[in-house]
Amino acid sequence: MKVLVLNPNSTPAMTRQIEMAARSAARPGTEIVATNPETGPASIQGYLDIAACMTGLLVEAEKYEDVDAVVVACFDDTGVDALRCIFDGPVLGIGEAAYHAASMISTRFSVVTTLSRSIPGLEVNISRYGFSARCCGIRATDIPVLELETDGATSLIEAEVEKAIEIDRAECIILGCAGMAELREHVSRKFNVPVIDGIASAVGFTESLVNAGLKTSKSSAYAKPTTN
Amino acid sequence: MKVLVLNPNSTPAMTRQIEMAARSAARPGTEIVATNPETGPASIQGYLDIAACMTGLLVEAEKYEDVDAVVVACFDDTGVDALRCIFDGPVLGIGEAAYHAASMISTRFSVVTTLSRSIPGLEVNISRYGFSARCCGIRATDIPVLELETDGATSLIEAEVEKAIEIDRAECIILGCAGMAELREHVSRKFNVPVIDGIASAVGFTESLVNAGLKTSKSSAYAKPTTN
Amino acid sequence: MKVLVLNPNSTPAMTRQIEMAARSAARPGTEIVATNPETGPASIQGYLDIAACMTGLLVEAEKYEDVDAVVVACFDDTGVDALRCIFDGPVLGIGEAAYHAASMISTRFSVVTTLSRSIPGLEVNISRYGFSARCCGIRATDIPVLELETDGATSLIEAEVEKAIEIDRAECIILGCAGMAELREHVSRKFNVPVIDGIASAVGFTESLVNAGLKTSKSSAYAKPTTN
Amino acid sequence: MKVLVLNPNSTPAMTRQIEMAARSAARPGTEIVATNPETGPASIQGYLDIAACMTGLLVEAEKYEDVDAVVVACFDDTGVDALRCIFDGPVLGIGEAAYHAASMISTRFSVVTTLSRSIPGLEVNISRYGFSARCCGIRATDIPVLELETDGATSLIEAEVEKAIEIDRAECIILGCAGMAELREHVSRKFNVPVIDGIASAVGFTESLVNAGLKTSKSSAYAKPTTN
Amino acid sequence: MKVLVLNPNSTPAMTRQIEMAARSAARPGTEIVATNPETGPASIQGYLDIAACMTGLLVEAEKYEDVDAVVVACFDDTGVDALRCIFDGPVLGIGEAAYHAASMISTRFSVVTTLSRSIPGLEVNISRYGFSARCCGIRATDIPVLELETDGATSLIEAEVEKAIEIDRAECIILGCAGMAELREHVSRKFNVPVIDGIASAVGFTESLVNAGLKTSKSSAYAKPTTN
Amino acid sequence: MKVLVLNPNSTPAMTRQIEMAARSAARPGTEIVATNPETGPASIQGYLDIAACMTGLLVEAEKYEDVDAVVVACFDDTGVDALRCIFDGPVLGIGEAAYHAASMISTRFSVVTTLSRSIPGLEVNISRYGFSARCCGIRATDIPVLELETDGATSLIEAEVEKAIEIDRAECIILGCAGMAELREHVSRKFNVPVIDGIASAVGFTESLVNAGLKTSKSSAYAKPTTN
Repeated sequence: MKVLVLNPNSTPAMTRQIEMAARSAARPGTEIVATNPETGPASIQGYLDIAACMTGLLVEAEKYEDVDAVVVACFDDTGVDALRCIFDGPVLGIGEAAYHAASMISTRFSVVTTLSRSIPGLEVNISRYGFSARCCGIRATDIPVLELETDGATSLIEAEVEKAIEIDRAECIILGCAGMAELREHVSRKFNVPVIDGIASAVGFTESLVNAGLKTSKSSAYAKPTTN
Repeated sequence: MKVLVLNPNSTPAMTRQIEMAARSAARPGTEIVATNPETGPASIQGYLDIAACMTGLLVEAEKYEDVDAVVVACFDDTGVDALRCIFDGPVLGIGEAAYHAASMISTRFSVVTTLSRSIPGLEVNISRYGFSARCCGIRATDIPVLELETDGATSLIEAEVEKAIEIDRAECIILGCAGMAELREHVSRKFNVPVIDGIASAVGFTESLVNAGLKTSKSSAYAKPTTN
Repeated sequence: MKVLVLNPNSTPAMTRQIEMAARSAARPGTEIVATNPETGPASIQGYLDIAACMTGLLVEAEKYEDVDAVVVACFDDTGVDALRCIFDGPVLGIGEAAYHAASMISTRFSVVTTLSRSIPGLEVNISRYGFSARCCGIRATDIPVLELETDGATSLIEAEVEKAIEIDRAECIILGCAGMAELREHVSRKFNVPVIDGIASAVGFTESLVNAGLKTSKSSAYAKPTTN
Repeated sequence: MKVLVLNPNSTPAMTRQIEMAARSAARPGTEIVATNPETGPASIQGYLDIAACMTGLLVEAEKYEDVDAVVVACFDDTGVDALRCIFDGPVLGIGEAAYHAASMISTRFSVVTTLSRSIPGLEVNISRYGFSARCCGIRATDIPVLELETDGATSLIEAEVEKAIEIDRAECIILGCAGMAELREHVSRKFNVPVIDGIASAVGFTESLVNAGLKTSKSSAYAKPTTN
Repeated sequence: MKVLVLNPNSTPAMTRQIEMAARSAARPGTEIVATNPETGPASIQGYLDIAACMTGLLVEAEKYEDVDAVVVACFDDTGVDALRCIFDGPVLGIGEAAYHAASMISTRFSVVTTLSRSIPGLEVNISRYGFSARCCGIRATDIPVLELETDGATSLIEAEVEKAIEIDRAECIILGCAGMAELREHVSRKFNVPVIDGIASAVGFTESLVNAGLKTSKSSAYAKPTTN
Repeated sequence: MKVLVLNPNSTPAMTRQIEMAARSAARPGTEIVATNPETGPASIQGYLDIAACMTGLLVEAEKYEDVDAVVVACFDDTGVDALRCIFDGPVLGIGEAAYHAASMISTRFSVVTTLSRSIPGLEVNISRYGFSARCCGIRATDIPVLELETDGATSLIEAEVEKAIEIDRAECIILGCAGMAELREHVSRKFNVPVIDGIASAVGFTESLVNAGLKTSKSSAYAKPTTN
């Protein structure tokens, strides 16, 4: 099967990193196609970027209509509702997928993300998906997305993970940014709790849905648009 | 004061109609500037249109930075979060404003809107704003937005209003589309319940907020973006 | 239009202060009439005072039947439900109005009020109005209402505002007592967040509702009583 | 022990009926003292009556300070919060008590009450107490409280009970008015479901709380008032 | 009347202690029969023990079919749903009973229990019963159930009670383990807040329900099983 | 990988049917081992059966400690919490898995299940998992589990599916019984909406979790028991 991985920001280096994470998560028979909009914000940091990337994201998406499923590789689940109106197959955001995964293996999870200003938007998503009672904290490191690889980022992330476990009593940690995927194993081993990366969860869950013959419902919210 | 009224769809005739409704609602000293994106969907009917109008909406908005407040004249409250990051003054969607007004004058309200496919998105908004327990129904007439003025539209709307009062036990009705504003008085008189049009509510509430010296908080979710 | 501002406690000095705040918030064409019950508690501090002021409040209210709207100038929104059964025009409590205003300009607000014993009642109101998810804290200074003007009160209030911003991550502050209105501008400037006074919000919103032709629904909860 | 049963309306005939129901529910060693305010509404039908009876209710209550517990015999739980500030022993409303009882013996209950206009107030109470998910309906017969004993009242009540069981899937019925107590057994036998009368529940629960040495917490919301 | 008190663990010494607490709480005419399963976990500490004790609990319960009511003396309310399908009379868990009692005498309660690993299960119960908004904390002492009587246990419990009052702002404390019953009076006097022991609450409430003629509804969730 | 599929009832014919459904859903490299308790209820119909099957289920589970993941093939998610304390790998109930799947591909789902008496238990699960706002109905056919294959069962199921779509406005249907799995494709094609069978969803999601290196968190609720 073919899974399209859409990075809503316009930074190809980040797309490459996401693509590698998606490929290493995918099953043998799954083809991963990763791409990003040609124009739009270089990173998605708050509500204005979410809105600003939308047109580029739709334009990019429409080039790939023959895919079996779509993963939106931004922790804000940017554009997922709109993409569900375009594609027949399942569409999952990496935030959404991570919350589902955490709910399957623990009773309480915390999110460790990049910027404080993203927290209100994540809280809206978590509430809408139904996971508010299980989310015991969202903690920001205030490292900008594109500086996640600089020195010091890892120890800032680890400090927030420790607080999530000690103070929030989190049983499970979600890394709340596509760019944190490669830290997953290290953090899980260090703190001895499950640590979830949304890219792997989203790839795995969309594969499962496709394998079970499930597509996005087209009977109401996600109906194909009539010409406008 | 100057209030910018943004119609997120690209249909100038609808903008003119909205502008008239906004002007007749505004206080003497208020200047209403109404506009719409140059490109984008002709009407906003579901999640794909919401996403598709976003870039045009932001481009249009950025032409008007000296306004005191902004009203988004689409019942889905399209783009409100993003616009709050751009403007200093208050920004209100007409859906949001209508729910606030209904909560001030009744214990239960129903919404009568155009298309069934918009209902799930409105439910998400109502839940997010905190009004789920007061909303006792969202009813669709399934009249497309741009055909609201055709014969028969009024009686279809009245039929749903009647069901909202009889079956949902609504104490108050919200007309869930910018294009329904001129029916407000007629329906209110016919059914002897308050009927709310979001345009008038949004204009009035933004005027009040400006008059009280209140602006959008810039300390987190709606902070001005750092250059991206 | 004529707006009746009811102070539910029987302290005329406080009514004068409230009247000034209401007048400075009102639009040019609005006449403010402020009054208080002739008998009853000198201040409203908890559930017993709320009950004890009720008869005096109703007696006072019934002297003013020709007003266009009513503001209840007590942060507990004392008697608002009963007054909605008496008056045709909109009736708003200053607590209620402040929560609505905060929800229009921020994603999270904290309340800074006088006495700890009032917190449970405010929590019940906030939950009932639907704003629990947006209220991130209610903080009491434990200054009795009638001592708000003594030395030291301002710095106690500022200390709680600071905690609300730092610890609760409030984007917006509500001053939870009619007697705190005159601190609004000072606190907002000092902490660089919007600060809301319920009197100005309630006056502004009732003016807007009247201007939009909206009255309290009389079809169920707030129906005029049949003679008893 | 001595239990004070307060009927918040001023109709002595109804107080006698409530007193009989309370006595037949009480344990051998329990003394029931039933009374009502000397002035105030003849029946409590909606928010205005709730407010209007308050002063009379407090005046009456203060005559009985040596009681061990208090039952408020009005299904709106009128004045319970204020009375908890006056008395040391437990204070329970008959609505509140009925919801607790229903939650102990079933998963879903419906309320059959008198007037439609009381429904919004009951919904607020049920939500505040935490029982919204268990309450599957509130049905009004629209028989005025003081006409419950007229011909036809019983069959109207039975018709609503039947709908509650068939349509709402209620496992248990609560009779939502102090004046319906004597129908309890008849309705329960006829429909073969538990039927709850709040007077018996409230008397029994307050007896249990007193017997277990429990009194109202005085540490915050229900603290004795400081002189005002 | 006869009340069966079921201790779901297989430790007879604990059953004796529970029996004494139940007897001292019961009314003169109430016969208390206390028992425990012959086999199964020695204490109930987490989800596995809850499941593992179930068969023994049902086998034991079926020996006592002629009782008027049943109390399940484990703070997890282990097996209450199943026992409601067996017995006609009311069945109450001691956790459940304690939350109801706390809600009748305060606006906020905290639970002080034994093991941290039990907290998620208690949170699920509290949410299901509808008391989440009133529960302001669950604190574990991490004393194993069977070591509650060792030196030091009391002071660890008192330390958590103090934090519940100071930090959680609890108006009322629930002792979250059948083995803590005898500390109730001491802790209440020391901290001057109501302290609730679930055994006394459950015995008292089941007595009240029986006295009011109320049995478990058999019309749906708790219907007698058809032979399987 | 090896996935253990536990049928909590003691009917081997049903286990064989479940095994076939699980095998046809599994990926090539996945070994499915299906089993059931040797003793216990022949079908799980309500709370008493859920409790009665528990010991047999645990005894059976403990024979299979070397598996990578566990699926509990009963729509009540019987024993999932306890099994998560025993196994290291992920454990999913088929009800739980179906709700997650429905939430990924639609905004509203209805469940069509067997017996009415199971509805309250399913509602508790759905609320606990966080999916109450997305579940728009649970409909029972009142066909006993072991008679699902008799004539007439299919048309009764289809009748409820139709009502779910027309009346509940469900965008997606969940078949709420392990024994309905083979109807999935037929019903989906007939009504043109996604139809979900929990077995396939649970197998797919556990495969994904294992593939992503995720195990059940052992830090609190699901910790391995200390010897008891």
